[in-house]
Amino acid sequence: MSDWLEARLFRAAGNLIDGWAWLSGEASAAVIGKAVGSTRNRPHPWSSFSDYTCWQGLTDRSYLARHLPPVDVPVQPDPERVRALFARPDGEAQISRKSTCLFPAFAQYLTDGFLRTVPGQVDRTTSNHEIDLCTLYGRTPAQTRALRLKSEEAGRRGLLKSRMDGAEEFPPFLYATGTKALSDPEFAILDAPLVDEALPQAQLDTLFAIGGDRANSTPFTAMMNTLFLREHNRIARHLQTLHPDWNDERVFQVARNIVIVLFIKIVVEHYINHITPMPFSLRADPSVAWHAEWNRPNWMTVEFSLLYRWHALMPDAIAWPTGDIPLRGFIANNAPLLAVGLDAAFSAAASQPAAKLGARNTAAALLHIEDRAVLQARTNRLAPYNAYRVAFGMEPARDFSEISSNPQIAATLQDLYGDPDHVEFYPGLMAEDRVKDSPLPGLLLRMVAVDAFSQALTNPLLSEHVWNEATFTPWGFDLIKRTSKLGDVLARNVPHRGPTPVEMTQADWRYGDPDGPVA
Amino acid sequence: MSDWLEARLFRAAGNLIDGWAWLSGEASAAVIGKAVGSTRNRPHPWSSFSDYTCWQGLTDRSYLARHLPPVDVPVQPDPERVRALFARPDGEAQISRKSTCLFPAFAQYLTDGFLRTVPGQVDRTTSNHEIDLCTLYGRTPAQTRALRLKSEEAGRRGLLKSRMDGAEEFPPFLYATGTKALSDPEFAILDAPLVDEALPQAQLDTLFAIGGDRANSTPFTAMMNTLFLREHNRIARHLQTLHPDWNDERVFQVARNIVIVLFIKIVVEHYINHITPMPFSLRADPSVAWHAEWNRPNWMTVEFSLLYRWHALMPDAIAWPTGDIPLRGFIANNAPLLAVGLDAAFSAAASQPAAKLGARNTAAALLHIEDRAVLQARTNRLAPYNAYRVAFGMEPARDFSEISSNPQIAATLQDLYGDPDHVEFYPGLMAEDRVKDSPLPGLLLRMVAVDAFSQALTNPLLSEHVWNEATFTPWGFDLIKRTSKLGDVLARNVPHRGPTPVEMTQADWRYGDPDGPVA
Repeated sequence: MSDWLEARLFRAAGNLIDGWAWLSGEASAAVIGKAVGSTRNRPHPWSSFSDYTCWQGLTDRSYLARHLPPVDVPVQPDPERVRALFARPDGEAQISRKSTCLFPAFAQYLTDGFLRTVPGQVDRTTSNHEIDLCTLYGRTPAQTRALRLKSEEAGRRGLLKSRMDGAEEFPPFLYATGTKALSDPEFAILDAPLVDEALPQAQLDTLFAIGGDRANSTPFTAMMNTLFLREHNRIARHLQTLHPDWNDERVFQVARNIVIVLFIKIVVEHYINHITPMPFSLRADPSVAWHAEWNRPNWMTVEFSLLYRWHALMPDAIAWPTGDIPLRGFIANNAPLLAVGLDAAFSAAASQPAAKLGARNTAAALLHIEDRAVLQARTNRLAPYNAYRVAFGMEPARDFSEISSNPQIAATLQDLYGDPDHVEFYPGLMAEDRVKDSPLPGLLLRMVAVDAFSQALTNPLLSEHVWNEATFTPWGFDLIKRTSKLGDVLARNVPHRGPTPVEMTQADWRYGDPDGPVA
Repeated sequence: MSDWLEARLFRAAGNLIDGWAWLSGEASAAVIGKAVGSTRNRPHPWSSFSDYTCWQGLTDRSYLARHLPPVDVPVQPDPERVRALFARPDGEAQISRKSTCLFPAFAQYLTDGFLRTVPGQVDRTTSNHEIDLCTLYGRTPAQTRALRLKSEEAGRRGLLKSRMDGAEEFPPFLYATGTKALSDPEFAILDAPLVDEALPQAQLDTLFAIGGDRANSTPFTAMMNTLFLREHNRIARHLQTLHPDWNDERVFQVARNIVIVLFIKIVVEHYINHITPMPFSLRADPSVAWHAEWNRPNWMTVEFSLLYRWHALMPDAIAWPTGDIPLRGFIANNAPLLAVGLDAAFSAAASQPAAKLGARNTAAALLHIEDRAVLQARTNRLAPYNAYRVAFGMEPARDFSEISSNPQIAATLQDLYGDPDHVEFYPGLMAEDRVKDSPLPGLLLRMVAVDAFSQALTNPLLSEHVWNEATFTPWGFDLIKRTSKLGDVLARNVPHRGPTPVEMTQADWRYGDPDGPVA
């Protein structure tokens, strides 16, 4: 069979499975079970609390769990030298043929929700270990209260605080304009924005009052948060018309039930489907987890916290309707979002390609963050790259060419580490060849799949006796079923939807097509 | 077949199963699976946070989960009238033919570890929702630090603070003798002892500095805590000889791993085996839970917190080597324990019968606590008794005689509630006939089995990748395997073990023997 024919048949089978709901469900369950089954399930015996198993290590979730116990790796090259593996040669970005910038935009917003290493204390986390949209709702009940409007007035029940800018609804500003004073004294309980250096007042004036310390990171993360804020308030307003007897508290809580699950649906059915190399769509069928052996309490790991540093996905500059923005101007600055509005911001993200994830492709402006990743792995004493290949059911690399087919990357690894067994976790992960039809390298793809499925589908809102109309209302349950993609939510929440499809996958991408674009 | 012959065969089968380890394991798994499978598994959709399902209700474990949603029961008799159901007629206790007082002693110490309703706020709990011996080790890491000796000196690593009284080791006193000042400033972080009224100085002088607010409740609970304190320090001292290179922290943590699991083994193999009406012994085989569908995160329920109020088990006075002690003198007073020492205290508990659990059998001194239980159910808006029978797979009672075969109890229920469907949860639970060969009534036995098995065997120390010699050391793992009963631990920790067997079951008890004593 020719490659061309095989690719066509492969695609046809995917379409068939997609169209046949029952088979799609069975196939999803099989894929998810196989992915999660590639390694040991939770509870993990170790955490960053101690080098051995103990009660506090097994229960104190302000530490991070670990897939493998700590070791001292024998070769630790200077991070400045490791930069040779990450830096774009001649500053030239390799551009992805599959992903748009909506992919890194969503990845960052998603992972900032549950992967939050404490700065300067990389063995600790502020994570709730759940996909709970704490970026929108706050990390604690006290933060949630500060972000809520709290009104028993009809039409204003159950809302999050917001600010109208013409027809555009945004989160409130964190600071009173032109000052460093909070715009609302209740915001004192919020986590301060995480920034590397003091910001000029003009940038401070654009920051939003939101649930996380990181959702102001870029206009992309702020745009995601704005989208779900609008969706929350839209849903709350509709619930009030359906249930005029409900008080502020109940409208808020039920709207939150719905929005968190809409978000998880998008995680699986939009985001993960973009990541997988499979030509059929996985479905967020909660029942897959109800009787699964891997359904155990979530606990983010040191490895998961580190492997999600996908800075290479960012191009050197972001194309924006107001003109290209260099990366440095895109950090902790919501001015670009405010200038063009939500639909134009999503359209900008979806209409430009992301860069490829992998070695020799990190923008110069972000190289210092790669240094931190290398050091974070050492502080947490992560086992070498090959140990993780074995732990996740792969053969260890016996030669540098088994990590990367690119001779320059293999030579850099050889130069840095000398022996494939000495390659460190993070550099090895990023140096690997990307999997055909996926934006991710092989071990990274496998590790993401394990932690994503085994921690998204265990959400209590998806559990067997909660996943029903009583929890979400019949209207909300139907809305959940009808929502799969970011574009579904955007269309409900902007005055005018533009022509750009809101997709993480580029329009001309074809799975398995040898004539088409490749990752 | 005659009842006599059937009983003999039943007993013989039990002995056979006990002697045949493989069958015993299979039978244990079947019994546990059947028990837990009688009702819906976790996560529960409801908690005491709200009347409907919501994110904070599903995640904030300072509230209690619920098996059934809240309702307003139609008939709420004055608690003073409900006392007719609980009070001992003519003050005469019905004495158990199966249980010794070691049974209520252990039950109280065990449940104070994870069922801790906040006084005056009965929808809230301070529980960690695990069997973690927090009574011994403290409820928080800061409390644990206050209770530890913290010494790097050889021979003193990994110990809990203690005080020698001749050859007897006890927890330190909480207060400096004759004062209300703490004996150690670090004890300020401990939870204050939970007492109904101010105690005389002589009693304050006897209270121990311990992990919980309730382990000073009676000399029985203090004796349990003393036993496990001695076992911890004994194990820590031995670990130091095996691992002279371990520091204070590691010796402490590994000793704690071992002691928590010794405790859980005793919960299943001593305590639960006393409760079950089955003639064969259940084994604490952790693998039963590894692949079980009911293995979901623990969360104590409002119902579980209430059904464990077993005050009827207490006789009117406690026989003690120094003379009978009326119940009022047995509360928040460790003087009787200090006077006779640990072995004599255990012997006293094990050599006197408990009272029967059930209606018309609460000591006068404890009747006011039954009032609180009735009110606690109403504050938490528990569904009526019959709703719980249905939720746990039983037929609803259609007649008062289906609750109790005792005409006086049935008549009292009729007088209080008029209709079997109106009987409240707590009175109904306690009014039922006891199950043949068990100290517990039927619905109570079933509800205890569900929550006990599904929350004890999910302990992270028993989980698939933790339950091994690396966690406990080979010596500790062997010690765990060799320990099944309180007497095993006591024999290792007293200067002189007396002749009284340390048993919860009376020596002349025979299962299913119609000629023998009955519960």
